[in-house]
Amino acid sequence: MIAINKNFLKLQDSYLFSTVRKKVSEYTKDNPDAKIIKLGIGDVTRPIPKVILDAIKKATDEMGYIETFRGYGPEHGYDFLREKIVKNDYEKMEISVDEIFISDGAKCDTANITELFDQNIKVAISDPVYPVYLDTNVMYGRTGSFQCSTGKYENVIYMEATEKNNFEPKPEDLEEVPDLIYICSPNNPTGIAMSRNTLKKWVEYANYNNCIILYDAAYEAFIEESDVPHSIYEIEGAKNVAIEFKSFSKTAGFTGLRCAYTVVPKECEAVYCDNGKEMRKISINKLWERRCSTKFNGVSYIIQRGAEATYSDEGKEKIKENIEYYKENARIIKNGLQSAGFTVYGGVNAPYVWLKTPNGVKSWDFFDIMLEKYNIVGTPGVGFGPSGEGYFRLTAFGDREKTIEAMKRLVEFR
Amino acid sequence: MIAINKNFLKLQDSYLFSTVRKKVSEYTKDNPDAKIIKLGIGDVTRPIPKVILDAIKKATDEMGYIETFRGYGPEHGYDFLREKIVKNDYEKMEISVDEIFISDGAKCDTANITELFDQNIKVAISDPVYPVYLDTNVMYGRTGSFQCSTGKYENVIYMEATEKNNFEPKPEDLEEVPDLIYICSPNNPTGIAMSRNTLKKWVEYANYNNCIILYDAAYEAFIEESDVPHSIYEIEGAKNVAIEFKSFSKTAGFTGLRCAYTVVPKECEAVYCDNGKEMRKISINKLWERRCSTKFNGVSYIIQRGAEATYSDEGKEKIKENIEYYKENARIIKNGLQSAGFTVYGGVNAPYVWLKTPNGVKSWDFFDIMLEKYNIVGTPGVGFGPSGEGYFRLTAFGDREKTIEAMKRLVEFR
Repeated sequence: MIAINKNFLKLQDSYLFSTVRKKVSEYTKDNPDAKIIKLGIGDVTRPIPKVILDAIKKATDEMGYIETFRGYGPEHGYDFLREKIVKNDYEKMEISVDEIFISDGAKCDTANITELFDQNIKVAISDPVYPVYLDTNVMYGRTGSFQCSTGKYENVIYMEATEKNNFEPKPEDLEEVPDLIYICSPNNPTGIAMSRNTLKKWVEYANYNNCIILYDAAYEAFIEESDVPHSIYEIEGAKNVAIEFKSFSKTAGFTGLRCAYTVVPKECEAVYCDNGKEMRKISINKLWERRCSTKFNGVSYIIQRGAEATYSDEGKEKIKENIEYYKENARIIKNGLQSAGFTVYGGVNAPYVWLKTPNGVKSWDFFDIMLEKYNIVGTPGVGFGPSGEGYFRLTAFGDREKTIEAMKRLVEFR
Repeated sequence: MIAINKNFLKLQDSYLFSTVRKKVSEYTKDNPDAKIIKLGIGDVTRPIPKVILDAIKKATDEMGYIETFRGYGPEHGYDFLREKIVKNDYEKMEISVDEIFISDGAKCDTANITELFDQNIKVAISDPVYPVYLDTNVMYGRTGSFQCSTGKYENVIYMEATEKNNFEPKPEDLEEVPDLIYICSPNNPTGIAMSRNTLKKWVEYANYNNCIILYDAAYEAFIEESDVPHSIYEIEGAKNVAIEFKSFSKTAGFTGLRCAYTVVPKECEAVYCDNGKEMRKISINKLWERRCSTKFNGVSYIIQRGAEATYSDEGKEKIKENIEYYKENARIIKNGLQSAGFTVYGGVNAPYVWLKTPNGVKSWDFFDIMLEKYNIVGTPGVGFGPSGEGYFRLTAFGDREKTIEAMKRLVEFR
């Protein structure tokens, strides 16, 4: 009698965005004339620059001739793309080509990397944060059950990021030592990027305690402040302890095309016990390579050519224009909310604005108010973790006019 | 101190194809004038039909305009493709759209699906077979250690497929009842497809014993004999017990583009124990959907449009021409080997020809003979499992002229 992985049953049923969708569709059914503005989901909307599409089409044509046809590519990605990444994103950091692994998404990578580690390691996760880190560890059996009273799973370290600590969890606040530490910076959903000083502390802490940091930098392209590192490898000692996740999704609008990459430095090691006798170290780079070659067959060749074109001069310029468009939206949202009297965070180094609900209104209640009174859809902060309660996320990925209109509604009618 | 998943250490180091590559490159270095013909790796070589490439390019253009731009798609794939699959591949089998999950490869799917089941289930795997099934279960901790003396991992049921049973493992030969049964048909590497009668026995067995069958039908398009089912769902009762994996890789030349799909019928269930009290059943379809939505972000939109075009009239016709090209290669190899006096299997319903080495020569020794005497590269059978010892795989995916030339060498100089 075949039995399932019971850890799946620990997962909470109501998935954040599907609940949001359901509420919006019910409201729209009852109010067919309402002009709903969606500032909820973190998906891009700007079209992809021509130079990238041309590269994809050229590669597509190559597939039509025996001479230029490409079958299986390397599981870790083509060197033409890995070399561009090293040269453009890691030039001063001494990252080598065989430390770059191309994938179809940072979501998959942050999810799949959990497999490399022992089931009994202790995981520390920012709270609030992108739900995938937690859910995948639940599925892997690293957590206990979900506790309704606290909104937390047992046996996970939740690193609070709230007003109290300027939304920056710090190692000195940990009550026990974790093995694996998830940091998302710039953070989804708070929009706060980690300062160089705090990140330094984390790298030192991880080196001292033999932890590994999983550093999700998917929103790195939005960073504008100079004291915020663009990569964790800007910090000395990070290569010993950190794996970095990057994506073309938010940078170059690839959410529908699918391409990302993960950096696994060769210095980064974990341990195993050799027949109960000796502790030995092993390179995570080698383990990840084995995982990729066994369970993955590489990213589509034509998509990798598209990703390569994001590093051309024209590609870089056009991508920057799109990022600037979203950043201007973020400024409009931030200023609008402030004019309307809200307390607001984020929105500077990230496409996310993190709004404190007034008078301690609960996140989901505030969602209903925003939907019903202003016809604006956002995301309840508590959906990203218990410390998100009393907060609300708005995203800058929308259309400019609609973003302006949404803020007008808030300023005028509040 | 962070510890690794020690199951990774059980994996055997020398990966089949990398060893083949290494031997070939060493030989080529010592014999720069040798005209090597590669009939080893199972990758396609025929260019992709224009109608498919045009669909991809049209979809790529759509990404350049706000009105037609697509961001995140559904994790389980777009309905335009799922509907085509249901209509074309499962019309008479009453498979519904929400039982189809689009992915970037059957390799990933057969690998990832292992996560849905309890760690302690018992797995039965054909021997020889595509190594991914076994390796992914090793990584998941379902097996014991590798035993050099037998070439097998402990705690796995190896279902022998040799001359003795016409390369068809049968349930009556099982010495214990497994929970999860891997069947690859047409089989890689033997090239033998399972007959309707034998498959019926497996479906009955799985229903009787509450097992699940993972049915890898990646080479289905090559089937030509009428007593071989194209889908396991042609067999009554299969929907209760079988998950089917299909791919555009070998059918439509998508090994470099990446698209596949998995069929998970809603009737297919597994059990869990409710707080140590009661056995309950749960739909695998729901679990797989949860896995996809948590750990995956869907296949590239433009690739899904390409896959859709494989179902157009022109697409179907052109794909068939490519398949026929490979099948003619398979006939040439089979006839050539027979003329040269070899005992040969497969090559009828599959692009693989399975050759018995003469005089009980070991697979790797035969590899060396083929490389050094005939300058032909094939794949040692033992690389697919211990029952592959004494066999050798040749593939029909090569160039026609080179395939003919290879057989000429064997017939003339043997």
